[in-house]
Amino acid sequence: MEREKLMYSDSRSDADLLWFSGVWIHDPFFAFTLKGKKCAIVSPLEIGRVRRKSLFDHIFDSSILRKKFRSNSDMESLIKLFKREKISKLTVGEKFPVGVADSLRESGFDVEAVSGGLFPGRSRKTPKEVSEIKFANTVASAGFFLIEETLRESKISGGILEWRGKPLTSEILRLKVETESLSFGADALDTIVASGVQACDPHEVGGGVIKANSLIVADIFPRLRRSGYFGDMTRTFLKGSPSKKQVVLVETVIEAQSLAISKISDGVNGADVHGEVCEFFKSRGYDTSLRKGKWTGYIHSTGHGLGLEVHEEPRLGKSDCVLRSGEVVTVEPGLYYPNIGGCRIEDNVLVKKGGCSLLSDYHYNWVVD
Amino acid sequence: MEREKLMYSDSRSDADLLWFSGVWIHDPFFAFTLKGKKCAIVSPLEIGRVRRKSLFDHIFDSSILRKKFRSNSDMESLIKLFKREKISKLTVGEKFPVGVADSLRESGFDVEAVSGGLFPGRSRKTPKEVSEIKFANTVASAGFFLIEETLRESKISGGILEWRGKPLTSEILRLKVETESLSFGADALDTIVASGVQACDPHEVGGGVIKANSLIVADIFPRLRRSGYFGDMTRTFLKGSPSKKQVVLVETVIEAQSLAISKISDGVNGADVHGEVCEFFKSRGYDTSLRKGKWTGYIHSTGHGLGLEVHEEPRLGKSDCVLRSGEVVTVEPGLYYPNIGGCRIEDNVLVKKGGCSLLSDYHYNWVVD
Repeated sequence: MEREKLMYSDSRSDADLLWFSGVWIHDPFFAFTLKGKKCAIVSPLEIGRVRRKSLFDHIFDSSILRKKFRSNSDMESLIKLFKREKISKLTVGEKFPVGVADSLRESGFDVEAVSGGLFPGRSRKTPKEVSEIKFANTVASAGFFLIEETLRESKISGGILEWRGKPLTSEILRLKVETESLSFGADALDTIVASGVQACDPHEVGGGVIKANSLIVADIFPRLRRSGYFGDMTRTFLKGSPSKKQVVLVETVIEAQSLAISKISDGVNGADVHGEVCEFFKSRGYDTSLRKGKWTGYIHSTGHGLGLEVHEEPRLGKSDCVLRSGEVVTVEPGLYYPNIGGCRIEDNVLVKKGGCSLLSDYHYNWVVD
Repeated sequence: MEREKLMYSDSRSDADLLWFSGVWIHDPFFAFTLKGKKCAIVSPLEIGRVRRKSLFDHIFDSSILRKKFRSNSDMESLIKLFKREKISKLTVGEKFPVGVADSLRESGFDVEAVSGGLFPGRSRKTPKEVSEIKFANTVASAGFFLIEETLRESKISGGILEWRGKPLTSEILRLKVETESLSFGADALDTIVASGVQACDPHEVGGGVIKANSLIVADIFPRLRRSGYFGDMTRTFLKGSPSKKQVVLVETVIEAQSLAISKISDGVNGADVHGEVCEFFKSRGYDTSLRKGKWTGYIHSTGHGLGLEVHEEPRLGKSDCVLRSGEVVTVEPGLYYPNIGGCRIEDNVLVKKGGCSLLSDYHYNWVVD
């Protein structure tokens, strides 16, 4: 007897479920395979919308199922449905809720959790998925354009930036990017616009006044509302005059990115790409170490898969992970030293036989006059 | 020996974890209690920011811990740490990932999943939490104001609404609300502005042209970025002249909401409040039934808890659930008939001894000239 796949989540936080169902549902619900069909148990509240918009072959109305099986919950209905269909072996993702798994096991089901996602094929994108990611990167680029424009309009006064007579802050720039993204139908949650020492914490979104002559890391990863796909790009800017150390740092990061991109193709180990970038930085004298309790240097991996999750398989990091054509990965080397500043440059590529192609497009001029 | 609590998630999707940690971390990480202290294992990438912003008593650097314990993953480090500390019994939430639970069990840990959340106390809000929810509702109210203003500025032409010379759409109104929310530092994801038959699917966000003389359901639930708390309000509007049936429908829903609010206080069963609303609608001749394959009438529950989740405990629905002072719940009766339209009115109250107090404030005038 075949194993059936089971999910219990909402499709915003569970990319496997969004991929499987093709519909946004914001409260947890059961979705599963049943003899080759895609099925779900959906509340009457959602069923009209889900019938119109989802990829499900069969949608059970939660309230009708409860009446039919005299059950008090969707869980009870599901158990009775599976028993009627003689299903006893279930495969779930590793993030499947343990409470539900335990209940199913107590009812006699063999529940096996697989690591790496329920649908490993999800990492290889269709042309339509690739085109969604490209469009999401267009939204990110529109954000960079606005940041650059605002930096250009800003004046340097007493070491800080002033825009339209007031201090320019990370908050102002983030709001511009996020508002612009909304107008494209995308949410650019957690957009990073961080300068100074803030830019040396790669996940610090940034806050407060932006100083002149300071590296500004802008990391924008908009999610398209129409489909759930993410873009993910980073550029580093500076308003004013860079120091020599800043110039060399940024140019080295840009060079590292080209190096990484030149190494990516079908069959290549992501760990080798990451290793080459680490070696390259070391060869240029940039060491990675703990200084005064703070990690400095090249403190993150070189990239990650991108799709319905902003971080998904495959990885370009320390662990072995062979890249396959059709996969989309970010390539985002960076260097972080509080005394110089933080710099990260990030684009996305589609892995192909013999190479890769860029899915993001924004220039690398980083000094704004 | 005491049980320790363990979480493995990101703090955007796991409200228990956000409540426990007080910090946004977007990739899954381990957080746990250890002999009365709040602890976490955090990557070097995040540790600076987390040290500055979180409620943790002790933060383990993931890379240092891996070196110390010669482990290849945070999971291995955690297991070795717990073994060193003679911890063998763990309590996790019901949504804890089964993959991690299974691995811990294979390593000899007793992992118990509790239903209803790891911190049941989270449903009773502190004054500070109440004030965050109130502020989030101010953001929602700013959205209603914009919708009303735009409806007022619109003209009726050929049965549809025109605003600034173009057809007024759900998309335009949603974008206005969401952009306005961003300017308050809140994300109003999935804002609903649905009219006509769309408004009869309570979770349909709405799309396309808005017709004159049609009920428009606007449901806004902004989440504050500074703290993660949600507001959640709904108003129903109509531009033009309502029919008699529409007038009676909306007035009945408003009356039902007052009735529900008057019944809420510490010690009351949420199911009784919901039951009273169901009875009230029935007594006014509004039946709930499946018509042409579509549920019509009063097709959802009366309310739900609100806080770091937009839907949390307690519930005002079919199941028994005693309300306690300090809890914040939505009160949102609605009626949905495709031939009349959909109407929902939603406010939030703080449960108290002997009654409740409103945490949201926007008028109920629904006909816009």
